[in-house]
Amino acid sequence: MVALIEKTRDFTRNVVLPIEDEHAGDIAVAGGDAIRIEMQAAAKEAGVFAPHAPIEYGGHGLNMSDRAPVFEEAGYSLFGPTALNIAAPDEGNVHMLAHVANEAQKQQFLAPLASGDMRSAFAMTEPAPGAGSDPSALNTRAEKVPGGWKINGKKWFITGADGAGFFIIMARTSGEPGQRGGATMFLTPTDTAGLIVGRHIDTLDKAMIGGHCEVTFEDLFVPDEAVLGEVDQGFAYAQVRLGPARMTHVMRWLGAARRGHDVAVARVAEREGFGSKLGDLGMIQKMVADNEIDIAASRALLVQACFELDQGGHASNATSIAKTYAAEAIFRIVDRSIQMCGGMGVSGDLPLARLSREVRPFRVYDGPSEVHRWAIAKRVVGAAKRAAREESK
Amino acid sequence: MVALIEKTRDFTRNVVLPIEDEHAGDIAVAGGDAIRIEMQAAAKEAGVFAPHAPIEYGGHGLNMSDRAPVFEEAGYSLFGPTALNIAAPDEGNVHMLAHVANEAQKQQFLAPLASGDMRSAFAMTEPAPGAGSDPSALNTRAEKVPGGWKINGKKWFITGADGAGFFIIMARTSGEPGQRGGATMFLTPTDTAGLIVGRHIDTLDKAMIGGHCEVTFEDLFVPDEAVLGEVDQGFAYAQVRLGPARMTHVMRWLGAARRGHDVAVARVAEREGFGSKLGDLGMIQKMVADNEIDIAASRALLVQACFELDQGGHASNATSIAKTYAAEAIFRIVDRSIQMCGGMGVSGDLPLARLSREVRPFRVYDGPSEVHRWAIAKRVVGAAKRAAREESK
Amino acid sequence: MVALIEKTRDFTRNVVLPIEDEHAGDIAVAGGDAIRIEMQAAAKEAGVFAPHAPIEYGGHGLNMSDRAPVFEEAGYSLFGPTALNIAAPDEGNVHMLAHVANEAQKQQFLAPLASGDMRSAFAMTEPAPGAGSDPSALNTRAEKVPGGWKINGKKWFITGADGAGFFIIMARTSGEPGQRGGATMFLTPTDTAGLIVGRHIDTLDKAMIGGHCEVTFEDLFVPDEAVLGEVDQGFAYAQVRLGPARMTHVMRWLGAARRGHDVAVARVAEREGFGSKLGDLGMIQKMVADNEIDIAASRALLVQACFELDQGGHASNATSIAKTYAAEAIFRIVDRSIQMCGGMGVSGDLPLARLSREVRPFRVYDGPSEVHRWAIAKRVVGAAKRAAREESK
Amino acid sequence: MVALIEKTRDFTRNVVLPIEDEHAGDIAVAGGDAIRIEMQAAAKEAGVFAPHAPIEYGGHGLNMSDRAPVFEEAGYSLFGPTALNIAAPDEGNVHMLAHVANEAQKQQFLAPLASGDMRSAFAMTEPAPGAGSDPSALNTRAEKVPGGWKINGKKWFITGADGAGFFIIMARTSGEPGQRGGATMFLTPTDTAGLIVGRHIDTLDKAMIGGHCEVTFEDLFVPDEAVLGEVDQGFAYAQVRLGPARMTHVMRWLGAARRGHDVAVARVAEREGFGSKLGDLGMIQKMVADNEIDIAASRALLVQACFELDQGGHASNATSIAKTYAAEAIFRIVDRSIQMCGGMGVSGDLPLARLSREVRPFRVYDGPSEVHRWAIAKRVVGAAKRAAREESK
Repeated sequence: MVALIEKTRDFTRNVVLPIEDEHAGDIAVAGGDAIRIEMQAAAKEAGVFAPHAPIEYGGHGLNMSDRAPVFEEAGYSLFGPTALNIAAPDEGNVHMLAHVANEAQKQQFLAPLASGDMRSAFAMTEPAPGAGSDPSALNTRAEKVPGGWKINGKKWFITGADGAGFFIIMARTSGEPGQRGGATMFLTPTDTAGLIVGRHIDTLDKAMIGGHCEVTFEDLFVPDEAVLGEVDQGFAYAQVRLGPARMTHVMRWLGAARRGHDVAVARVAEREGFGSKLGDLGMIQKMVADNEIDIAASRALLVQACFELDQGGHASNATSIAKTYAAEAIFRIVDRSIQMCGGMGVSGDLPLARLSREVRPFRVYDGPSEVHRWAIAKRVVGAAKRAAREESK
Repeated sequence: MVALIEKTRDFTRNVVLPIEDEHAGDIAVAGGDAIRIEMQAAAKEAGVFAPHAPIEYGGHGLNMSDRAPVFEEAGYSLFGPTALNIAAPDEGNVHMLAHVANEAQKQQFLAPLASGDMRSAFAMTEPAPGAGSDPSALNTRAEKVPGGWKINGKKWFITGADGAGFFIIMARTSGEPGQRGGATMFLTPTDTAGLIVGRHIDTLDKAMIGGHCEVTFEDLFVPDEAVLGEVDQGFAYAQVRLGPARMTHVMRWLGAARRGHDVAVARVAEREGFGSKLGDLGMIQKMVADNEIDIAASRALLVQACFELDQGGHASNATSIAKTYAAEAIFRIVDRSIQMCGGMGVSGDLPLARLSREVRPFRVYDGPSEVHRWAIAKRVVGAAKRAAREESK
Repeated sequence: MVALIEKTRDFTRNVVLPIEDEHAGDIAVAGGDAIRIEMQAAAKEAGVFAPHAPIEYGGHGLNMSDRAPVFEEAGYSLFGPTALNIAAPDEGNVHMLAHVANEAQKQQFLAPLASGDMRSAFAMTEPAPGAGSDPSALNTRAEKVPGGWKINGKKWFITGADGAGFFIIMARTSGEPGQRGGATMFLTPTDTAGLIVGRHIDTLDKAMIGGHCEVTFEDLFVPDEAVLGEVDQGFAYAQVRLGPARMTHVMRWLGAARRGHDVAVARVAEREGFGSKLGDLGMIQKMVADNEIDIAASRALLVQACFELDQGGHASNATSIAKTYAAEAIFRIVDRSIQMCGGMGVSGDLPLARLSREVRPFRVYDGPSEVHRWAIAKRVVGAAKRAAREESK
Repeated sequence: MVALIEKTRDFTRNVVLPIEDEHAGDIAVAGGDAIRIEMQAAAKEAGVFAPHAPIEYGGHGLNMSDRAPVFEEAGYSLFGPTALNIAAPDEGNVHMLAHVANEAQKQQFLAPLASGDMRSAFAMTEPAPGAGSDPSALNTRAEKVPGGWKINGKKWFITGADGAGFFIIMARTSGEPGQRGGATMFLTPTDTAGLIVGRHIDTLDKAMIGGHCEVTFEDLFVPDEAVLGEVDQGFAYAQVRLGPARMTHVMRWLGAARRGHDVAVARVAEREGFGSKLGDLGMIQKMVADNEIDIAASRALLVQACFELDQGGHASNATSIAKTYAAEAIFRIVDRSIQMCGGMGVSGDLPLARLSREVRPFRVYDGPSEVHRWAIAKRVVGAAKRAAREESK
């Protein structure tokens, strides 16, 4: 493990970071899939490729707790996760397919995904009034037809959609929007008729390959074998994917935040002003220390949540807490790093401005902070209500 | 006054905002000086041009208190200040020239600047170890030569430098870097030999015309008549410019923040989720209310500082307080507005993501928050030390 | 005006503050009404008594804007408002009686209240499930009987109840709890049969005379002449009292916060540590500056709200904003002041620990911050909903 | 371990909490040492006494990691730590004596301390300009005399001094104040001539037995055998005590914060308002969730620091981070709990107001947050300076 962490650190800093810096962190500008394939070949060479994938599919088979330090090292460069094949959404899809897919599906989809021969997309989020923060609003429908299903609907913010080899499509198979009902996941090659990848939504972040796209399904026919797991169990599988996916996001972004912090600390340690090194001035020291505290607390909450996930639970509460804290902490860390560097901080001469763009959406993606807080509170207040009813019996 | 506020509001929203939105707030993409000239012609037509400039130079001659609501309305669009000729640095330069320049200088420089026939730059900030937050580090030197001065040095973050018709150059004329000593301001047409405008520094903000540039002076000769005001009085004149310039920044950015807030409120008032309008959910209401409080407090502090400036003082403390509070509040307002809008908030489908880019640097420009806090505290603690010494006598 | 401010400042610091400090800010320990009468005599002597009361009742007749600096000076000591007869609830009751009472009621109640010969109580708040933050829950009922009304109900947190000469009782005269319906205010001498003052609720604050009491009405008969203003108009009169009462609270507590700040600044200006005066260390400077900013912003919002009140409006939004910001800012100011003083800060050797106790409840009293934020947001979101409906027509 | 946690939980809630609540958390009012002895007897009976003490001295011999959940359960009542004999400063003194004392000293001091037959004090902190946050300012001196040492100096904030059986005195044995030099610890029975316990400093917290006292040493003679460990090694031993003492403080106060949170959640789960349970309103949910996040993050940082301490390191950075975060988080948790309960929250009818008083000083005691942040930043910036020097070689 320690060796893999070290190797990942060296690879990320020596091989990947220069590519990111050369292209100002814009993966499309850097070459898109071409640069991905090049970096992934180098990662295989360096023995750091696919730390998360099952060993039988060429990965290192790490559990969540062991992934944490490795992913954080990879996240030190915005392109690191792509280089190691652990970027969203592929990384989460590998995780879910390993848990839910049948053998034939694994051969067809998991194998090329784990090896980097193919990318994937996870098509769940919908424009209003569909499924966003509130999954029960799911609007896309799959209708049973002979030999398969016919899917109609509209998705957006589908990460990596442009260039993906296949989609995992979440569609309603029972109930009405606004009710929970049943959802089903379908594995669908991108070249299937009726699957239309639309425009890239222009977002603050630029480091994810394949964009965040609009996707439309127009009478998209998928055969019965496309069903992932069982019909109507989609919400449950989404849970399987969700907790770990939140945590791997934290791991990666924590690496990015750490880079921002390191850049800023290196600068204030050298730069003079007001008769002193800037890093010896109290207000700068406060920002440095607050960054250290935010890094340590994010990591400590992550460790706790990974431990619970590795024990086999959904860890919904622990992952909500860790995600919410970390998403806000990571943003603060980068923001303070900018402030420490003054004019340089808001310029392209340092990577901080682009890090700030990249990490901001994390407070929204994978459940906005407000939705997580609502879920956390509901559990606690709900338990207190039940306790009061117990007592009053 | 009320009429001018109303007219500015209508002009900004009906004429300018569509241009900003069409070009995603990037003034270079929108056409740079060409679009500026077009918008300024429209502003003259609408009777809202140059609210700040002296009446004899075609402006409305507003004092600081009256500027506040007008500039805020103009700032509602990122291009509004350019359209009204009240963008930085021209607006501050008009203010300073009106106070310090002699008649000939006014004819040569103030007149075309006030009318929009020419843009200008204010060349003070230097790369490390020169004058940044700490002006006493001023490195650029003007050496007395027969008939004038020879200037050598390097500046950066010179807003509007590319395309400016003339520069106001701040150079050391006595003392050594690290001492206060004396600085002098020189009025210099851009086409003077030895004045070299270098690269645009790539910054988070894109709405300011002419970029934030590097500028070099290589044996730049300027005649004696180029001296603005008196030799060695540059730091004092910078103070004349500084307080008002801070406040007009606040006015403009407050308008931008208010647009962000309005966009977000309009959205949560309509969008459904969790069985309710989003805007009726408590956590969203908290963000809406905090925005309202931040807007009200920024404006109230601004009113106080403008009152003091109009009384004739430097208002250093009041403008430091208002600038520091407002720069941080404006950032919070836009950030909360993004959060209220979720995925849309971080996308180009709403103007919030770009507003966030634009307002972030304000916590650094015109004195980082830390430097203002240091200055505020020094005054208070210094007074307490003096009081203690008095008492112990 | 300036003279009255100066006189109030001198009186508060030289006469009142020593009494507060001698008794650690506990007015009961200091002697309750006895010390009140003594201080009020001194205030009359000094010409600073009752700045708010109508001139015909012996006061200075100041409007809200002029009250602000005077009340702030009085608030510099926790006992100052009592000394000037401008403590809650008497000050708010004087304000309301001056606006709503008829001549006979003014003679009987306003005159002795304004002169300090009598104290009063305002009986509105009820224990759950009655009227707390949500006034429509009003539970206390007044039933019409021949010649008057019979009141039954239970109140709590009735400030100044113990020792008050009369009560203003808010009771429901139409509608049911949970509906708005109609409420009526009744002026009732304390010695009326059926008005029972119960225990003092032990609260964090100790500077208000007469405690925060439980009060019960058991078949309390009041004659028709006891009705203040008109029947069923109680909620409207409460609004008359509410806005100004919020603002005078802010004025007084702002004075208290300023004292805390001054104590802390004086200390860090003198105390050595880490090779410097503490007040010259960056992290302390940050706290000093943040206090200055919070003081300035509270005052600026107060000025704005007082201006609106003096124009004759309810200023519900402006007073909600000013109250919410100031209540939180005042708490932060005192809390930072404690932190600046370390161990001394949490001890009785400085007044900071007791100031902290005193100001904490202000975030709850007069509407908790959450209720104000809810009201602020409702107005804004409501307006956005209406605008959208207009547009869609 | 799980059994001990459970037993501690039951004992604290069933036996100790009722005593605390009866006496409003004031241990002196509750009976001081008399109630301590009574509670400790009950704790022995219940098998939960002295979880931290070495097994050979009658304790459970828990390491730091195992102490965490047990101490947190004990801390659920403000009197719990006293009942289990794990309150400051005795708990930290047991820890240090177990590590540093010789056999004779253990018999004389550690044995009765571990069994609760005696209390102790740790006399390090001095009034200005002595040793406070900056230990190098140590002023109290021990001068070598035949057969022992003569100590002179003044201490304050000496917790538990009144009634302590013995003192551990920190005195300078080489160097001058302002230099680090050498300090030595002396074990001294309270009844030694020249050891004078002065007034109790009146502080916000009331739950610690024996007060926070001023203590003076006037030509206090102690024999050579009184030296704890070695001469001039006092600063090093203080480090041995410091890290663990910080963490046990966190454990205990985290229990107290959790009680505050539980009280508030129970209330908002039941209380109605605005047409709903308060606990179902968004702004309340936000406070509940933020409390949960703060509890989880404090605990996660504590777990990390305890792990490092149990590995044998000083864990200076990890304990600084955990202490700083937790001290601030604990205060926020209690403060939000008050806010959730409105008027009840600031009253003595709930334990929240007193919890707020108790936990506030923790941001000052054991190193103010500012000193910890300074230390954290110094390490990071120092490392960056060294790295830059390495690179430039």
